[in-house]
Amino acid sequence: MIRIALIGCGRIGQMHAANLDRHNRTELSMVFDADQQSAQTVARTFGVQSVNSAEEIFSSSNVDGVLIASVTSTHADFIEMCVAAGKPVLCEKPIDLDLDRVNRCAQKISGTTVPVQIGFNRRYDPGHSSAREAVLAGEIGELHQVIITSRDPEVPPRAYLEAAGGLFRDMTIHDFDLARFMLGEEPTEVFAIANALIDPKLGADLNEVDSAMFILRTDSGKQCHINNSRTAVYGYDQRVELMGSNGMLISDNRKPNEVRRYSKHGVEKASPYEFFFIERYSEAFMACLNGFVDCIEKSAPPLSSFEDGRRALVLAETAYRSLHERRLVRVSEVD
Amino acid sequence: MIRIALIGCGRIGQMHAANLDRHNRTELSMVFDADQQSAQTVARTFGVQSVNSAEEIFSSSNVDGVLIASVTSTHADFIEMCVAAGKPVLCEKPIDLDLDRVNRCAQKISGTTVPVQIGFNRRYDPGHSSAREAVLAGEIGELHQVIITSRDPEVPPRAYLEAAGGLFRDMTIHDFDLARFMLGEEPTEVFAIANALIDPKLGADLNEVDSAMFILRTDSGKQCHINNSRTAVYGYDQRVELMGSNGMLISDNRKPNEVRRYSKHGVEKASPYEFFFIERYSEAFMACLNGFVDCIEKSAPPLSSFEDGRRALVLAETAYRSLHERRLVRVSEVD
Amino acid sequence: MIRIALIGCGRIGQMHAANLDRHNRTELSMVFDADQQSAQTVARTFGVQSVNSAEEIFSSSNVDGVLIASVTSTHADFIEMCVAAGKPVLCEKPIDLDLDRVNRCAQKISGTTVPVQIGFNRRYDPGHSSAREAVLAGEIGELHQVIITSRDPEVPPRAYLEAAGGLFRDMTIHDFDLARFMLGEEPTEVFAIANALIDPKLGADLNEVDSAMFILRTDSGKQCHINNSRTAVYGYDQRVELMGSNGMLISDNRKPNEVRRYSKHGVEKASPYEFFFIERYSEAFMACLNGFVDCIEKSAPPLSSFEDGRRALVLAETAYRSLHERRLVRVSEVD
Amino acid sequence: MIRIALIGCGRIGQMHAANLDRHNRTELSMVFDADQQSAQTVARTFGVQSVNSAEEIFSSSNVDGVLIASVTSTHADFIEMCVAAGKPVLCEKPIDLDLDRVNRCAQKISGTTVPVQIGFNRRYDPGHSSAREAVLAGEIGELHQVIITSRDPEVPPRAYLEAAGGLFRDMTIHDFDLARFMLGEEPTEVFAIANALIDPKLGADLNEVDSAMFILRTDSGKQCHINNSRTAVYGYDQRVELMGSNGMLISDNRKPNEVRRYSKHGVEKASPYEFFFIERYSEAFMACLNGFVDCIEKSAPPLSSFEDGRRALVLAETAYRSLHERRLVRVSEVD
Repeated sequence: MIRIALIGCGRIGQMHAANLDRHNRTELSMVFDADQQSAQTVARTFGVQSVNSAEEIFSSSNVDGVLIASVTSTHADFIEMCVAAGKPVLCEKPIDLDLDRVNRCAQKISGTTVPVQIGFNRRYDPGHSSAREAVLAGEIGELHQVIITSRDPEVPPRAYLEAAGGLFRDMTIHDFDLARFMLGEEPTEVFAIANALIDPKLGADLNEVDSAMFILRTDSGKQCHINNSRTAVYGYDQRVELMGSNGMLISDNRKPNEVRRYSKHGVEKASPYEFFFIERYSEAFMACLNGFVDCIEKSAPPLSSFEDGRRALVLAETAYRSLHERRLVRVSEVD
Repeated sequence: MIRIALIGCGRIGQMHAANLDRHNRTELSMVFDADQQSAQTVARTFGVQSVNSAEEIFSSSNVDGVLIASVTSTHADFIEMCVAAGKPVLCEKPIDLDLDRVNRCAQKISGTTVPVQIGFNRRYDPGHSSAREAVLAGEIGELHQVIITSRDPEVPPRAYLEAAGGLFRDMTIHDFDLARFMLGEEPTEVFAIANALIDPKLGADLNEVDSAMFILRTDSGKQCHINNSRTAVYGYDQRVELMGSNGMLISDNRKPNEVRRYSKHGVEKASPYEFFFIERYSEAFMACLNGFVDCIEKSAPPLSSFEDGRRALVLAETAYRSLHERRLVRVSEVD
Repeated sequence: MIRIALIGCGRIGQMHAANLDRHNRTELSMVFDADQQSAQTVARTFGVQSVNSAEEIFSSSNVDGVLIASVTSTHADFIEMCVAAGKPVLCEKPIDLDLDRVNRCAQKISGTTVPVQIGFNRRYDPGHSSAREAVLAGEIGELHQVIITSRDPEVPPRAYLEAAGGLFRDMTIHDFDLARFMLGEEPTEVFAIANALIDPKLGADLNEVDSAMFILRTDSGKQCHINNSRTAVYGYDQRVELMGSNGMLISDNRKPNEVRRYSKHGVEKASPYEFFFIERYSEAFMACLNGFVDCIEKSAPPLSSFEDGRRALVLAETAYRSLHERRLVRVSEVD
Repeated sequence: MIRIALIGCGRIGQMHAANLDRHNRTELSMVFDADQQSAQTVARTFGVQSVNSAEEIFSSSNVDGVLIASVTSTHADFIEMCVAAGKPVLCEKPIDLDLDRVNRCAQKISGTTVPVQIGFNRRYDPGHSSAREAVLAGEIGELHQVIITSRDPEVPPRAYLEAAGGLFRDMTIHDFDLARFMLGEEPTEVFAIANALIDPKLGADLNEVDSAMFILRTDSGKQCHINNSRTAVYGYDQRVELMGSNGMLISDNRKPNEVRRYSKHGVEKASPYEFFFIERYSEAFMACLNGFVDCIEKSAPPLSSFEDGRRALVLAETAYRSLHERRLVRVSEVD
């Protein structure tokens, strides 16, 4: 069993703690949170030790790896500390909201052999990943177009939005990563539009948006569309469509069961989609942990690396420039 | 254009009149109904002649074929008259509610070369017939099981039920015919149960049932299940499942369009199914007319012959005996 | 019966001739084609008169309306002649490949009360139009995003492409119109990318593209994505997705029947999609004729007007400017 | 953590061992198998003790409950021993192939408060159970018809079949139980037909069948159809349809992901169904364990009791009598 320490015991941290506990290749070894009460609650729930400083984790011989789920602004620091301590690290996205900070972190850890994995869980989803494998196996010939539909069931609380760094860095970042993963080539051009359609006050108060559309393109001409919304009242909407010269693949939404309902009010009604990312990507979170264990045990490179985390942020920055300059922006202008 | 005279101008007759008018290989030439007012209304609508006696139809040189949509008790007489007059005939099901009458009719017209087609429209449905063709093409290997789901959206009016001859002869007769068509072999054994579940008064007052299940079997062991209900509140439910040694085919319900709805109250909700048989089998009714024209023009044997009509009734009679004797009954005990 | 004369007896003209013949409110009254042999073939097939000049149509008292299906470069001339002669006109898209010519035509016919309908058949599709009606009925709250997927099954012949005026004016023009129809507001900004992915020679030889993505936006911020491809080997792919504050609607592809196949090689396999626009939009073409008859009989304004035809072309022009200038272009820069 | 001892370390026993290990409320405490090598292999895999006699389990203070997955002929003995020892027991179906033996066992353990649960895992399936709950909540009004489709992907090896006790006792027993569960009333009449369609030698050599259809009915007239096949080459086919006075529910097959494929060879092709019961009912097996823990911790009656196991066998016996006597047989004739 690989012993993983957890840094950050908020909502996502608690989910990770439960997953580490449940996973048949990992065990939760100790937890840390700047808010000691949060840490102690999680520690009690899973019968593990709560430590008073992150350093205790880095110096412990009972820790084979570290999962970072603390607030975003601490990610880069913790990654650097983990690498310095030789502890493999699985860090939640985004690495940081500031590309400069990410680049400095990249420099600092450059050349290390300590595995650093970024938690882009969607790469590990059974549906999305089997679609990607089918493309790699040539099932649809040459890939031409990728369409990513990614919509949240509701607008997050104002407090969350104020700290989140903007829709592109907080929400679309997953889709930018998925676009890169699916395209199999680096997107080199980005175009974006965005509006505050659901809650116009978001725009007025926070300069934030809630609905967006993107077009990305690679140098070979592969095209990608992403559409985002924060108000899919029908449920968390996560679809990927891959169009190629010889066919198409769609990785569609997941339901908890295959019950369909028929009444005066409608036919073939499906069970509601999984509520949100924790439910929808539950298998993916576990598979992501599995990948992390492989990194540690087999020194395998992570499926979602630090550089993947950095590039997704670069795409977000490029998209913001496109939004402001109303034009197709080359990624190289930003990176 | 093949000139077709219509006998019977009630609800179904009116539908046939419109179809004959619309069809690009037929025209409605004249109409007759014992109720002259009905006949005149239809005649006016389509700008054709209304005649005062059916004999005028049989003796007219402007009639290439006759479509019989009058009340059931007159079907056999009209078939006999058509055949005597050398007029090809397309007759609504059932031929008669009384098997003896049907057998006498069979004897009377035996040996004739005048085409006699029974209106088992489901054989002509694009879905059902393409499923049947796939079986014939060997797509699912050897056919083992047929499952027919056949449910009406609502119980018909009491007056209709009193004249209809019982669920098996009125409604299931279509499914008995479809079972024979799909099995590709003669069912030789029948078992039936039936209850008045929707409206217990049907049982008490009319000795009628509204929900039934059947099992049929051929001598080679092919198995068929039929289930009927008069209360599919979600819409007319018409499905055929064909299970074989090498695969399965399902011919599912039809919708007027492919709009799906997503809301707080459900996802993937489809448009309502076609309301009832006139809507659901609209293409089948036209294809059935097309088959009739082929019979007339090419002297081709009908896809649904008089003998098919007779055998469906035999299955209904066998099913009633099974119902009363609570056992698997051989068709040969009845026929 | 409304008597319609047909100008243009090529492939599309022949389809329209058959539809006019089949439709229960129209009859084909006479045909004209610069290629007299084509005209005579159609005339013979439907038993109507073939005339030697279009003028015979405009001056005939047996013509209630004119359907223009001739080559694109003649559309505007014929529209002007029809209007001058007081003959209601239903003209195939596009009005012309040259926006100036369209604008001159608009000026010339401005103020007329003669109905001029453009054949944007997709507005009349049962699925698309019922989705639009659901939006108007408030079913999904406020509309936020429209996603149009529109892909042809194969690249047309080189000769067709040379005359077609480019993907945006030939193919996307339908989608631009559908975008306007669905958005319910005028798109005022357009962004486009396009590549020759399927056949790179298209780009080299004809400066043509085969794969494209678009983003449109209205002044209120409604967003629309269109994606096009000429190589949907799995079939003609025509989907519309409407995302709103209170739900979503998807108008999906149509199949000729609802047979699903299950074998070692896959489950739930559907029947192939309708091959191409003639099959896929067969109901829409008939409904479009119905709308034209309503225009003539009730002097109702057409659902797809000359101005709709003009605006779709304006969007195509705007899209081409965006393609060349790599930026979001305001429609007002072009129109 | 509830400590469960496992009796029987064959294929199913190994699956249960892994589940007990993985489940967050149970741990595998010790294992026994008459074949000591099997027991030792499982013991090593999960790091638990292998004992030389079942008695060691019954007398151990480290065992909170026992899971019986040994050969069928030993089930009743082990159940009796567990009950005598006061150990809660979860036993694989069927209790025994001989109804007399089951009845004697019932008598012996009658009056005990020790929980005895039978592993009818399908009751615990998320889809099937949520459909059942919807019925109980009145969603489809009064339940009228239940249709159970239950087909295995392939015929088991000859050796398995020789010991299995016949299709009805081995395979249909699950469907008989599900029928009782879904009907919410006791079926009192049974009709069955069965044939060796896939492998006629099965009939000749073993007097065994591979394809069967059943009709069950309750005293209030609720109807149920079951159909079985051992040759669903397209995958393990497990569907339940519940038809009521106010609607219908279908619990359909499960797929490992929602990828759909589109090619020249077909559209909307789904990912293959879960291979067989271990994969298809993986969640159900875990939920079944959860139910067992509830029984132990809360002294809750099991969702699938000993009497449920007995009654399913009674239905199998009744079905065999129907098969031989070719008639509707009352359950009371057998029980």
